[in-house]
Amino acid sequence: MEELDYLAGERKRAEFDVDAMKIVWAGSRHAFEVSDRMSRLVASDPVFRKDNRPMLSRKDLFKNTLHKAAHAWKRIIELRLSEEEAVALRHYVDEPAFTDLHWGMFVPSIKGQGTDEQQKKWLPLAYKMQIIGCYAQTELGHGSNVQGLETTATFDPDTDEFIINSPTLSSSKWWPGGLGKVSTHTVAYARLIVDGKEHGVHGFIVQLRSLDDHQPLPGITVADIGMKFGNGAYNTMDNGVLRFDHVRIPRDQMLMRVLQVTREGKVVQSNVPRQLVYGTMVFVRKSIVSDASTALSRAVCIATRYSAVRRQFGSQNGGPETQVIDYKTQQNRLFPLLASAYAFRFVGEWLSWLYIDVTQRLQAGDFSTLPEAHACTAGLKSVTTSVTTDGIEECRKLCGGHGYLCSSGLPELFAVYAPTCTYEGDNVVLLLQACVARFLMKTVSQLGSGKQPVGTTAYMARADHLMHCHCSAQRAEDWLKPNVILEAFEARSLRMSVACAQKLSKFSDPEEGFAELAAYLAEASVAHCQLIIVSKFIEKLQQDIPGEGVKKQLEILCNIYALALLHKHQGDFLSTGSISSKQVSLANDQLRSLYTQVRPNAIALVDAFNYTDHYLGSILGRYDGNVYPKLYEEALKDPLNDSVVPDGYREYIRPLLKQQLRSARL
Amino acid sequence: MEELDYLAGERKRAEFDVDAMKIVWAGSRHAFEVSDRMSRLVASDPVFRKDNRPMLSRKDLFKNTLHKAAHAWKRIIELRLSEEEAVALRHYVDEPAFTDLHWGMFVPSIKGQGTDEQQKKWLPLAYKMQIIGCYAQTELGHGSNVQGLETTATFDPDTDEFIINSPTLSSSKWWPGGLGKVSTHTVAYARLIVDGKEHGVHGFIVQLRSLDDHQPLPGITVADIGMKFGNGAYNTMDNGVLRFDHVRIPRDQMLMRVLQVTREGKVVQSNVPRQLVYGTMVFVRKSIVSDASTALSRAVCIATRYSAVRRQFGSQNGGPETQVIDYKTQQNRLFPLLASAYAFRFVGEWLSWLYIDVTQRLQAGDFSTLPEAHACTAGLKSVTTSVTTDGIEECRKLCGGHGYLCSSGLPELFAVYAPTCTYEGDNVVLLLQACVARFLMKTVSQLGSGKQPVGTTAYMARADHLMHCHCSAQRAEDWLKPNVILEAFEARSLRMSVACAQKLSKFSDPEEGFAELAAYLAEASVAHCQLIIVSKFIEKLQQDIPGEGVKKQLEILCNIYALALLHKHQGDFLSTGSISSKQVSLANDQLRSLYTQVRPNAIALVDAFNYTDHYLGSILGRYDGNVYPKLYEEALKDPLNDSVVPDGYREYIRPLLKQQLRSARL
Repeated sequence: MEELDYLAGERKRAEFDVDAMKIVWAGSRHAFEVSDRMSRLVASDPVFRKDNRPMLSRKDLFKNTLHKAAHAWKRIIELRLSEEEAVALRHYVDEPAFTDLHWGMFVPSIKGQGTDEQQKKWLPLAYKMQIIGCYAQTELGHGSNVQGLETTATFDPDTDEFIINSPTLSSSKWWPGGLGKVSTHTVAYARLIVDGKEHGVHGFIVQLRSLDDHQPLPGITVADIGMKFGNGAYNTMDNGVLRFDHVRIPRDQMLMRVLQVTREGKVVQSNVPRQLVYGTMVFVRKSIVSDASTALSRAVCIATRYSAVRRQFGSQNGGPETQVIDYKTQQNRLFPLLASAYAFRFVGEWLSWLYIDVTQRLQAGDFSTLPEAHACTAGLKSVTTSVTTDGIEECRKLCGGHGYLCSSGLPELFAVYAPTCTYEGDNVVLLLQACVARFLMKTVSQLGSGKQPVGTTAYMARADHLMHCHCSAQRAEDWLKPNVILEAFEARSLRMSVACAQKLSKFSDPEEGFAELAAYLAEASVAHCQLIIVSKFIEKLQQDIPGEGVKKQLEILCNIYALALLHKHQGDFLSTGSISSKQVSLANDQLRSLYTQVRPNAIALVDAFNYTDHYLGSILGRYDGNVYPKLYEEALKDPLNDSVVPDGYREYIRPLLKQQLRSARL
Repeated sequence: MEELDYLAGERKRAEFDVDAMKIVWAGSRHAFEVSDRMSRLVASDPVFRKDNRPMLSRKDLFKNTLHKAAHAWKRIIELRLSEEEAVALRHYVDEPAFTDLHWGMFVPSIKGQGTDEQQKKWLPLAYKMQIIGCYAQTELGHGSNVQGLETTATFDPDTDEFIINSPTLSSSKWWPGGLGKVSTHTVAYARLIVDGKEHGVHGFIVQLRSLDDHQPLPGITVADIGMKFGNGAYNTMDNGVLRFDHVRIPRDQMLMRVLQVTREGKVVQSNVPRQLVYGTMVFVRKSIVSDASTALSRAVCIATRYSAVRRQFGSQNGGPETQVIDYKTQQNRLFPLLASAYAFRFVGEWLSWLYIDVTQRLQAGDFSTLPEAHACTAGLKSVTTSVTTDGIEECRKLCGGHGYLCSSGLPELFAVYAPTCTYEGDNVVLLLQACVARFLMKTVSQLGSGKQPVGTTAYMARADHLMHCHCSAQRAEDWLKPNVILEAFEARSLRMSVACAQKLSKFSDPEEGFAELAAYLAEASVAHCQLIIVSKFIEKLQQDIPGEGVKKQLEILCNIYALALLHKHQGDFLSTGSISSKQVSLANDQLRSLYTQVRPNAIALVDAFNYTDHYLGSILGRYDGNVYPKLYEEALKDPLNDSVVPDGYREYIRPLLKQQLRSARL
């Protein structure tokens, strides 16, 4: 059989070294090799098949996930995979499962919040999966506000135990993944009560199910919370509900690295700084930013390839119609998303560096950069996941009608990604109460005080200049200069923050002002985060990047990212006087010309993600572009096509056609 | 049992007559009564239950839909319902089914394109459902571009038949609802070929399945195209694929109202004007705009009620937390959507008037208003459905984590609504090639010529003023004046169109200019459509509206609609110089104050939609606000909760925990 590649012509047009770009995307040659090897391993193993997911009932779907998780573990052991390889393998299995929570939340919680002794006891069990754990924080009535949790952990000095209890319906733990059907243990968060006095919310290791027969232990009520958005998607996960009826656990199952309760019932702060907790949040959120670039790049890969396959309109004299990727409207929606995928990749890379930096400083007792790092990761989490969610849906629309079929892969990608905007901090809350806006307002208020703004807010030190500067762009080409772009984004961000601070200062009660101005504070926060992403992309381009034409392509993408943002948010730039209407128009002209430059490289730029057809899970995004015959094949697999005449014909269609409805019982 | 109403306090705060608002929303007392009666009829009938949809397998789901369709037909006959009542009943059954296509596309196609004789033959059969029809236009390789269809209908003078054929894979009919498993007949669109010559694309009535045993007729290959986005949602519909292998049909099954093929093989244009077809498009698109207001209002109703139930943060001294509807960020996202639902309602009402007007003119041979009506309905279809799709998803996010549960109703509402952006004209295509942009450019180009712009473009006659006027708003309150708002929207829209026209004029090939400037043309089209919606809302308020406080509330909503748009698109207003930065800021101040005014009325404003809990299909949107106990109850119904220990425990979890994986076969 000869191999067809309908996109071969597109691939030949690329003006850069795709293999070199693959290394840039992966982060290093080593990272590329691990990811390449693991993705192929998964793709070639029939147990990891996932194209049938949308057709499976909830029970079959879930059982299938259990099978995959067990099989993955077996392969990890058989092949003696390293931790890095095991993580990659689980990633390419590409199916939410209890193992995500076990490895991603349960183990890190014990490592981060457990004493050395507790780590020594619990981690080996968890590492071998002799116990399976989850993370029980949110409750039916309480989400983002951890301090509002109602579950209690009351110390009983008589027995040296804690009594874990769910006092109300709304205190039921609700949402934890892996809880509903699988986990044997959990870290449960509860209000610590000792001698009638409250001591805030802390984590407790609680066993949920018997290790013999998997039955819930006495006092534990546990179940799955039911179907969630989409076909397949997160329905492979047993998100659960959990109620405690005065469940007793030994005192040493409270995670006591920061706060300890002694045998005598004394509550003692340890000498481990509380700020360590924020280190974990920086870690989790940096991973979410990396995942955003991955999810967005998958959607973009599908939409880009299909846009080159699909033809519509523009036929002249009976010739073939125009490839939809050649339409400016398509480019105008697609290419900024392609650029965003790369931009998020590089800001994620930088966050990994930031996490290492913060960790090293924490270990040296230096907490000075922590608030800025915390605000910045929270903001980037919010901005990148919102753009990614909307971007996946936009890619689906860019595929026209066929994007609506499950076999396009896009519905499931959207449904499985959507909760990211809510979990680990609701995106809107993150921009405001929690982090970014407050940090920005504080920074602005201290500008005159001699205290130097640090990290990503360092530009604010140049407030005198940025408040009054005029953008120097006079021709469209000027918008290719990194310093012109940077200054425009800096001026816009600073001026929006300063405007908010001025409005805030008119309120006698700052909290009231914060509440009233929330929408504008959120916009100022977004502007700041977009500046970070633009500036980290520009910094990346200042590095040495090997490979023919690679840097040139990245420069084009960087400019598209910045100028498309400028177009979308021109209201901000204009209302702050950061640039003029004429300059907006020049930037738009430049943007159109950049689209023309990226067009011949588009397919190669998504090939650089190095995704297997298995991982993409999309007929429309197939590497070989052989879309239509495969869509047809896939359709015939639907259970509804098991018979030509459908179930229900005799009962419901025939009586209709034969006008027997009056007498028929329905 | 006493009845609880957790939202009773909210309802008491309303400052207007909710019953009177219900009449306004429904359009008339009569329309309210029909819709109220039919929605209750459906809600009280257990056959029409829909809460189990997400848990059903595709086959069971589809069979259930057949059951409901047959039952609905039975009830319609038993109760001798009028056509209006039958339409309402089917609407409240709220489940996509083959009947949508039978009544919504098959019957209207025959009415619109069939000769009197053809109507006399086919319509009685269709009205009694002795045949069931669908509408086969789009093909696997061809969507919006009808002229690109490949299916052929070749006249055979020897037998007086047409031969319908699918010459390629990409010519397979793909997507038609009702085709996959149910329809006995279809109107198929194909290129008419007579004596070797092509005569464009026309409709042909083709029988697909035997009326005896429902088997496909010879030469017909038909199947379902497989799973689509979401749980339940459009998976109740048998969207199908259809291939013709030289299928012969009698000559009189070509729909010949406009073009006829005679026994001798002559192709004759009838004296019925071709423009009649556009009348049908106006009808279909006006219905889509009304449906947009319905879909958006459902999502807004759910999010508004739940925002009043949900509390988060802001607890002081252990008191209850703050209702999330009291947060400005929530109001800033929710209230513009509430206002949009009302705005779309009224523009839909106006479109119904427009349709009647156009129809009467067509019958009188007056085609002068048709291009404008066609452009305007296409544009409004595009704008309202895009906002609605995004708005439903925004409402889901406004419900936090719980919005992700199927029991919130929002995932299915989104998934079932999403294709609206693509079908009946892709939204982006509609703004450009098809209609709005071209019409605007033509209107602008004729401004100096003495030809008066008509209908919704009439304001362009005041170009001299609008190109140079300065917005008069000097205080926040000025933004409550309808003429201030209108002029700002008119100036923005006109100036954007004129700017596009100027850019276009620089291209020697106008088509190349159109392609290159597509993104800006689309933005100018959106600006024009938003102006139409704003102006129709303002016109509505100039009517007499009975009911205490009703008009006042609508005025508030109208202002929120306009000022929220102004905020979102401030870049347009600023870059065209239609208003100043200072005026943007004043408009924002006014907007915040409007949010405060609408807040106490929010629950009553969504009660005015008069939706039953059955129709809403959402635990979060329950009328009584009793959310948490019901979420818990609903969760326990998931099939995964049939057993405490899940299927697959013995095979996949136990071996993991017991470290038996090395030996176990997985």
